[in-house]
Amino acid sequence: MARNRPPKQQRPKALPPKGFRDYFGPEVAERNAMLAQITEVYHRYGFDALESAAVETVEALGKFLPDVDRPNEGVFAWQDEDDAWMALRYDLTAPLARVYAQFRNDLPSPYRRYAMGPVWRNEKPGPGRYRQFYQCDADTVGAPSVAADAEICMMLSDTLETVGIPRGDYIVRVNNRKVLNGVLEAMNVTDAAQQADVLRTIDKFDKVGEDGVRQLLGRGRLDASGAYIDGVGLSDDQAEPVLAFLTSKAADAAKTLANLRDAVGGSDTGLVGINELETIGDLMAAGGYGAKRVDIDPSVVRGLGYYTGPVYEAELTFEILDDKGRKRQFGSVAGGGRYDDLVKRFTGQAVPATGVSIGVDRLLAALREKGRMNSTAQGPVVVTVMDRNRLGDYQAMVAELRSAGIRAEMYMGNPKNFGNQLKYADKRESPVAVIEGGDEHANGVVQIKDLALGARLSAEIETAEEWKAQPAQMEIKRGDLVAEVRKMIARNAEQG
Amino acid sequence: MARNRPPKQQRPKALPPKGFRDYFGPEVAERNAMLAQITEVYHRYGFDALESAAVETVEALGKFLPDVDRPNEGVFAWQDEDDAWMALRYDLTAPLARVYAQFRNDLPSPYRRYAMGPVWRNEKPGPGRYRQFYQCDADTVGAPSVAADAEICMMLSDTLETVGIPRGDYIVRVNNRKVLNGVLEAMNVTDAAQQADVLRTIDKFDKVGEDGVRQLLGRGRLDASGAYIDGVGLSDDQAEPVLAFLTSKAADAAKTLANLRDAVGGSDTGLVGINELETIGDLMAAGGYGAKRVDIDPSVVRGLGYYTGPVYEAELTFEILDDKGRKRQFGSVAGGGRYDDLVKRFTGQAVPATGVSIGVDRLLAALREKGRMNSTAQGPVVVTVMDRNRLGDYQAMVAELRSAGIRAEMYMGNPKNFGNQLKYADKRESPVAVIEGGDEHANGVVQIKDLALGARLSAEIETAEEWKAQPAQMEIKRGDLVAEVRKMIARNAEQG
Repeated sequence: MARNRPPKQQRPKALPPKGFRDYFGPEVAERNAMLAQITEVYHRYGFDALESAAVETVEALGKFLPDVDRPNEGVFAWQDEDDAWMALRYDLTAPLARVYAQFRNDLPSPYRRYAMGPVWRNEKPGPGRYRQFYQCDADTVGAPSVAADAEICMMLSDTLETVGIPRGDYIVRVNNRKVLNGVLEAMNVTDAAQQADVLRTIDKFDKVGEDGVRQLLGRGRLDASGAYIDGVGLSDDQAEPVLAFLTSKAADAAKTLANLRDAVGGSDTGLVGINELETIGDLMAAGGYGAKRVDIDPSVVRGLGYYTGPVYEAELTFEILDDKGRKRQFGSVAGGGRYDDLVKRFTGQAVPATGVSIGVDRLLAALREKGRMNSTAQGPVVVTVMDRNRLGDYQAMVAELRSAGIRAEMYMGNPKNFGNQLKYADKRESPVAVIEGGDEHANGVVQIKDLALGARLSAEIETAEEWKAQPAQMEIKRGDLVAEVRKMIARNAEQG
Repeated sequence: MARNRPPKQQRPKALPPKGFRDYFGPEVAERNAMLAQITEVYHRYGFDALESAAVETVEALGKFLPDVDRPNEGVFAWQDEDDAWMALRYDLTAPLARVYAQFRNDLPSPYRRYAMGPVWRNEKPGPGRYRQFYQCDADTVGAPSVAADAEICMMLSDTLETVGIPRGDYIVRVNNRKVLNGVLEAMNVTDAAQQADVLRTIDKFDKVGEDGVRQLLGRGRLDASGAYIDGVGLSDDQAEPVLAFLTSKAADAAKTLANLRDAVGGSDTGLVGINELETIGDLMAAGGYGAKRVDIDPSVVRGLGYYTGPVYEAELTFEILDDKGRKRQFGSVAGGGRYDDLVKRFTGQAVPATGVSIGVDRLLAALREKGRMNSTAQGPVVVTVMDRNRLGDYQAMVAELRSAGIRAEMYMGNPKNFGNQLKYADKRESPVAVIEGGDEHANGVVQIKDLALGARLSAEIETAEEWKAQPAQMEIKRGDLVAEVRKMIARNAEQG
């Protein structure tokens, strides 16, 4: 039999490209529901939607990702028929810059816009790291005042509470790049390369703490792996203002600001930055956003290298267990800040902008962790097919149920094996199956079967009495179909 | 002065790639609202969401667009770092085939799924023809019965009514490729090339009508431009069944089916197809979907070449004026049918599938045409800045309004020129401006200005008396801000 077998045809592999994935049913619905809630908040704040295409010219995107300096890496790009390079957007800020430059004479000024959608990164995928993921951004373009930064921090606070993170389980922390610039002035670090070294060191504050930063700013440090990391080579006196800056957080904002004034010495830039933080704090208080929701915190270092003014970050403060079972805080779900030359590449003019990006997938993960995702996943009522010559009768039942707003379907597979129909209903997490054989039809009745109860009963032996009190299957009048199915689903919801 | 000017730096052009466009504010909101309505219907019918990535391997996509036969054209493709080809999806069916083949052991069978999102075509753009556009699909995979086709036709009818196309303004028309195959058998046209010629000719029925098709099936025809189009070369007798098929639509379904039986003669395939149409008609009637909503219509020819069984199309029947001011029907907004080898490329097994694709942009255009898009576009209340030292006071007002669910913002531009603040409010289509100068602040009052009324008054001179009765600007107590702004917006909505 094995002889003369025809050559096997090469079949395509049924797989997505490496680093891409599919989202099914409830995952899609949950994300859409969360994005709709965020949209509602952004809209209430006066932000307008913008949806640009997934594709931009490489020229318009710029050759650099905002936070890496490898030219033309990190994006999916290809050549047009005219040899022009096009690429998938890697974030939502670069398209905003192009759109604002293109339509600046028609758009209101300031322009508040939000955007939600996938972005693409041509990077090595890893566990939980995909090459397509959602971003959700809000930016205010053309507003020089830090009132715009304050507004975005308030909006971030409202957004988190709206999607289901309770007050007290998050904090929006605010810092300012200008204060750091003032610190560098006070340290008399003017060399650009040395400034960059200091910034890189500050970025490690979260990981190595105060002593670690002190060592790294000085002669260096032995890291956990035993390797020796060379330091920046500053004297202890020179390093002091940076450490004062990073550790200036005090019990209240007034004290924090006083500490910062010490840290920047007489630097004008630093004082401007501190006044901006003070203004932000005052606006927060005026809006009713206390320090439990939005707080001045100079230990926020993420993005300080990239942004030019206020920097903000939303952190979830409740604890979860990590992969190794250790408790840790959930951490950051959104971040942003002020970047004052959004469209300069296009127009030559600096236009101030400030904005935030929410990590949609991380925020969804947090909501699932908190059990705050009120899953609306409800399988359909399945009308089974006992007699394939009476599809019209079954179709009529389905149409009645649907018209009453009940999710329902007729079984569409081969109806021969009735067991397969119930297996299908189980797989769909169907709450109720409807059964009408010839006898029932003749008598004007149908059977309805409580599948959710059935599943509970088979899981919980001790509820055998309940089983008798609430039989999982009952006969009802055909005319009562909608009312009885609705009752059964409601009973399920109560007890489920 | 012109001498020694520094060389001008080359700036990137602020334009999207050719054939791509941006969507602003209300356009995005309207589309999202419509897609949410469609989602609700699809969900009620038991369909589950699927969101695959924008990118697939070229191997998985297949080298052909479904309805053209140019290899590898029409898609945006590029090579991965491993030299593997990837491409942007050109529709939502090819990814469904890949997903179903990949997960077929875990998915319920039959699998009902819907998908919504952008697709990309590397084709020459034209007026209203973009290289990225939305599709919105629903398919049932693994259901051989035409009950699945009937269900999709009912769902299409419900969807159109749900988004705002009234009954009577649309018709879902159903045809069947098998009937056409029966006609070809009856004509004794067995040669594949000649069959393709006949199909191509049938595709022109909408344009050239019965006589045109008769000529094109025979010796040929002089077209409107004066060019002579060669015919297929069939005799009049041979051509007759095709014409009988295309013109078999009668006053009721029974008569139409009888006409079709004549057209297919004794062909078994043809009779199977006619019985399928009859079953679909019976299921429609059982579900309460009369011929005014879903109708058997053998003159539907779009897609007959591609599909293998029932074919359906939703047409909007109300008239609009075309570019030249002539009345014409709005036309097709959705189409689909049965294609019975969805995953064969991947698995070697034929799996039956049937599904529909809604043209999202055309349906949106239709709703705008009908004035059915209840535009929720409402600009924000603008709290103006009279005194930049009291930003906190203005911020407090904005926060109060937002907490009450009113869309509101503080003016964020340079507050120096008050006229610019009102111009900004106009541009935002703001309903109300709030003004609080030093005197007002001292007296515990604010001014609120009805900008919508102001705009109406300046447009309609005759309402000068109304102007006095309803002054466009009024002084209110600071404590009444939310209540009075809400009243002003409501009055606007009534009179707007």
